[in-house]
Amino acid sequence: MKILITGGAGFVGQRIAMECLRRGELDIADKSIETIVLTDNADPPFWHDGIREDSRVTTSFGDISGNHYVQSLFNDQFDVIFHLASIVSGHGETDFDLAMRVNLDGTRYLFEQVRAQENNARVVFASSVASFGGDGMPDSIDDNTKQTPRTTYGMTKVIGELLVNDYSRKGFFDGRSARLPTVIVRPGKPNLAASSFISGLFREPLNGENGVIPVDPSLQTPVLGYRSVANGIIKLAELDPDVLGTDRAVGLPAFNVSVQEMMDALKRAAGNRHLGEHVLKRDEAIAAICESWPKHANTKRGLEMGLPMESSLDEIVTHYIEDYLDAS
Amino acid sequence: MKILITGGAGFVGQRIAMECLRRGELDIADKSIETIVLTDNADPPFWHDGIREDSRVTTSFGDISGNHYVQSLFNDQFDVIFHLASIVSGHGETDFDLAMRVNLDGTRYLFEQVRAQENNARVVFASSVASFGGDGMPDSIDDNTKQTPRTTYGMTKVIGELLVNDYSRKGFFDGRSARLPTVIVRPGKPNLAASSFISGLFREPLNGENGVIPVDPSLQTPVLGYRSVANGIIKLAELDPDVLGTDRAVGLPAFNVSVQEMMDALKRAAGNRHLGEHVLKRDEAIAAICESWPKHANTKRGLEMGLPMESSLDEIVTHYIEDYLDAS
Repeated sequence: MKILITGGAGFVGQRIAMECLRRGELDIADKSIETIVLTDNADPPFWHDGIREDSRVTTSFGDISGNHYVQSLFNDQFDVIFHLASIVSGHGETDFDLAMRVNLDGTRYLFEQVRAQENNARVVFASSVASFGGDGMPDSIDDNTKQTPRTTYGMTKVIGELLVNDYSRKGFFDGRSARLPTVIVRPGKPNLAASSFISGLFREPLNGENGVIPVDPSLQTPVLGYRSVANGIIKLAELDPDVLGTDRAVGLPAFNVSVQEMMDALKRAAGNRHLGEHVLKRDEAIAAICESWPKHANTKRGLEMGLPMESSLDEIVTHYIEDYLDAS
Repeated sequence: MKILITGGAGFVGQRIAMECLRRGELDIADKSIETIVLTDNADPPFWHDGIREDSRVTTSFGDISGNHYVQSLFNDQFDVIFHLASIVSGHGETDFDLAMRVNLDGTRYLFEQVRAQENNARVVFASSVASFGGDGMPDSIDDNTKQTPRTTYGMTKVIGELLVNDYSRKGFFDGRSARLPTVIVRPGKPNLAASSFISGLFREPLNGENGVIPVDPSLQTPVLGYRSVANGIIKLAELDPDVLGTDRAVGLPAFNVSVQEMMDALKRAAGNRHLGEHVLKRDEAIAAICESWPKHANTKRGLEMGLPMESSLDEIVTHYIEDYLDAS
């Protein structure tokens, strides 16, 4: 089995790659993993140990919004494609055209290459709860809620879901969309996602630095730990298509928690570790984006499909401490 | 005021043009209509009397899926753009790539030209109830129902609505989407829309010919008369943006009626005119598409905005007889 991961040098891309390497095979046609191609636009700030050293892994760097580059990736025929590459929410708000090129044109170039393959490859497209919003949004969203996004990022994610459904309906490939809540705790540096501070409110205090909170601490948002995100995306690839029905977009399970609850969970899970401070410093641009997102996600459909979630916020923090602080 | 109508040689495009010419002005910034540019891919089978003869009208023929052609239309700055050009449902099912080029690429080229203008032009995009479908669709759809289309045509219509919302949110233009039910009664020849037989079941018997019914007569679908469709689209252009809220896609009012009820209405409204027969001849491809569409539309939101509808199906048939049979 050959796997392609776009955005493969990003945090979620690397976590999926690590998990695939660890398992050695996926529950799709009983095939062991021969090759994982990780493509991204640039070498990442850091690689997790064991990825680049693995003989099954190839990396390729280029711009997915260029059709020639996308075509060049498809000398191999891939069995599973995890499509994570994306301009993120905050970045898309400052550069509409870039978001359209990467998130929409790039996705179409990729999907056309998969369509041109002879097999009926599995595709998992990473969508987002940021695809919801607007004045018609209910207090709790689920997989049947209309998506009327209030960011260009969110708009391109809904379009991706629509393309996945239609390419699957036409038999061009066997696609699924994973609607991700905010992924915590991302290691490394902040990124341009408006939700970036949410990982920061765990990560920076654990590094002895200030965690800046640009929104009201009462802001509630769905979140999920990175282990469950990676495992859920892989599980979606493995699911029988009949389980999905005609709408192949599935919200990953999530904890619906406030920023304050996350701050409290950090303090509990950190035990007697020294923690930096949380500093409230409102940023209107970030707050406006985050406040447009759903406060509560009902993820019953994903849970019934067997998509995983942690037992508590505290467990997510504990995993982060194990994986990124104690390990190094 | 300068108006551009894409798909302007089509039936709905011509009806909008006729109505604009008749009114002489629209209720937008109190400006009288100086110019109407009608663009389409080819000279139509017929022009309604009075359109081409009007000194305010210019026609232009070219392929909207070519960016150069779209750019060439924008030597003028338009105040209102009615964007109707589209590959229709049945055609899109047999030519996916053409539907993507015309309905998605063409729409993006057009929207980029409007964005490049200095004004904040009004745009009305013609969407469709065919944008609904799939196994999660409720018995009755409304403006808050998730759209999970089962045709490529429907998919591109949802994408158009998303683009209208985001271009409007960004201030690139002041857009609205009109979600059209099946428009009756279209004069002339059948087209490649899967719903084409619905106009045919009125039109062909009134011409003394057989009206072929390719679906079960119990099939129910939302329909609206062409006068209300044209007036509703113009009304949407005139509405204050505050009335629309963040989701600028509005379902036009509709009659939720079965094919049998339409056959019966024809017989009542035709009076003592000679009518051809209705012939049941199932077509699985057409039936599959039509059966994937909503059976019932709750169009309360559009009605509250003042969008018009006829008083009965019979009135729609009477209009058709007046406009297309008695007039000629």
